[in-house]
Amino acid sequence: MMLEFEKFLNAYVYELRARTDETLCSAIDYALNSGGKRVRPKLMLLTADVIGLNKTTVMPFALAIECIHTYSLIHDDLPAIDNDDFRRGRLTVHKAYDYATAILAGDALLNTAFEIVANHSNNDSVTLAAISRLATSSGISGMIGGQIKELKSTCHTCDDLLDIYSKKTGALISASISIPCIINNVDKSELAIFDEIGNAVGLIFQLVDDLLDVEKEIALGKTTFVTLMGKDNTNALIKEQNNILINLFAKSSYDCTLLSDYVKTLSVRNS
Amino acid sequence: MMLEFEKFLNAYVYELRARTDETLCSAIDYALNSGGKRVRPKLMLLTADVIGLNKTTVMPFALAIECIHTYSLIHDDLPAIDNDDFRRGRLTVHKAYDYATAILAGDALLNTAFEIVANHSNNDSVTLAAISRLATSSGISGMIGGQIKELKSTCHTCDDLLDIYSKKTGALISASISIPCIINNVDKSELAIFDEIGNAVGLIFQLVDDLLDVEKEIALGKTTFVTLMGKDNTNALIKEQNNILINLFAKSSYDCTLLSDYVKTLSVRNS
Repeated sequence: MMLEFEKFLNAYVYELRARTDETLCSAIDYALNSGGKRVRPKLMLLTADVIGLNKTTVMPFALAIECIHTYSLIHDDLPAIDNDDFRRGRLTVHKAYDYATAILAGDALLNTAFEIVANHSNNDSVTLAAISRLATSSGISGMIGGQIKELKSTCHTCDDLLDIYSKKTGALISASISIPCIINNVDKSELAIFDEIGNAVGLIFQLVDDLLDVEKEIALGKTTFVTLMGKDNTNALIKEQNNILINLFAKSSYDCTLLSDYVKTLSVRNS
Repeated sequence: MMLEFEKFLNAYVYELRARTDETLCSAIDYALNSGGKRVRPKLMLLTADVIGLNKTTVMPFALAIECIHTYSLIHDDLPAIDNDDFRRGRLTVHKAYDYATAILAGDALLNTAFEIVANHSNNDSVTLAAISRLATSSGISGMIGGQIKELKSTCHTCDDLLDIYSKKTGALISASISIPCIINNVDKSELAIFDEIGNAVGLIFQLVDDLLDVEKEIALGKTTFVTLMGKDNTNALIKEQNNILINLFAKSSYDCTLLSDYVKTLSVRNS
């Protein structure tokens, strides 16, 4: 399944190289193919499978959401924000290229996300509804809102952190699960279940990240759920969210096994 | 007409403040209300008038295109790109706020553009076609493509410069004129005329900018059409484009007086 996605992604990068500056494309290619886990596209394609939606229909959105995730990493890594020189063992984009290229490559990826989905519509009404959900998730009420809140607050409370997590990480992960449902016009009560599934998966994903990065975050003096509440409380919250997920998967009228199996691997991952 | 636009813009900023971080909204407000000429929204609303399209229908796109223009200025001004401390006599966003806020405010404005138009659709098919045109104009084949080409090429030829101009400035100005036509479903031959009008207006706009900024650009060692070809040749090209415009306006089956009158003021402006 992910092979099809990689093929779609690389066909897009190939097409890019035909129409613009070599450095910018090379930076975009470097960022998109830097060993990411493709969590968001995978959640989207698995959800499509679960609800019986043709994967071809959802592919442009899977690429768009990976473009948005990737742009957010490029801009987050910049000296003015997190100032990271390495990501996944490789130089970050502004180190491998330069600061200006990293800013523009990020801008280009965000813009591209909307360009791709607007240009690949089978059904204009649902595509537009899905674009709206995508833009809300990545924007001021979602990911960017979470990034700025994280950047500006110096003393996080537990509630603050959970709000930041739900926006910064949760919104886009949740959109990955809800967008196929929007495109497939699933009924409102089912959509509500998948929205809740997305929220739980997003929170679990971020908490596991916190557990994996705890040494680094302590060294940087960064407040995370783990540094604030400890590992035991974090593991307890992950367990609670996993129980919520079990109930939600059971509540859905679809057979969610494929999605549920993948989500389990996100709880026990080690990178 | 522009009062309605300012009202729409400020209602949006007001609504923003209700849902997110104070600093980010304040930076966005600062950037959107910094004495810009609103050239793109004005072209869009005038074109709507000319072709008999309700201005309310086009208003979200007018705001979206101003958001995209504004984000591009914020990111262009950053130390890593043009390193400008002032714009229109006021501190640039990264000086009035900080570098990280300027990056995120730019990202938020780009994202917001697509959020606004996806959330205000009267007719999904034409809205989607207009979103596609907007994204193409602001993206890798348009504005961002022009920015990166300008940044990377050290020795511009006349052809290079005209290609940069058509992408960096022309694409968004041309979209301002074509998008109302797309929304109003004007026939293909008329759309082609308005596309050509947009291209000529975009080129005139950039050449007049070059004439106004010539002292500054020489001091910075920047190559523009004026520094490369001289003032006389630039004025001759502006005149040529204005003649092309006269023919295009006459060729259209619409009465283009309103648009043509405004475009004339763009040729003789002094700021």
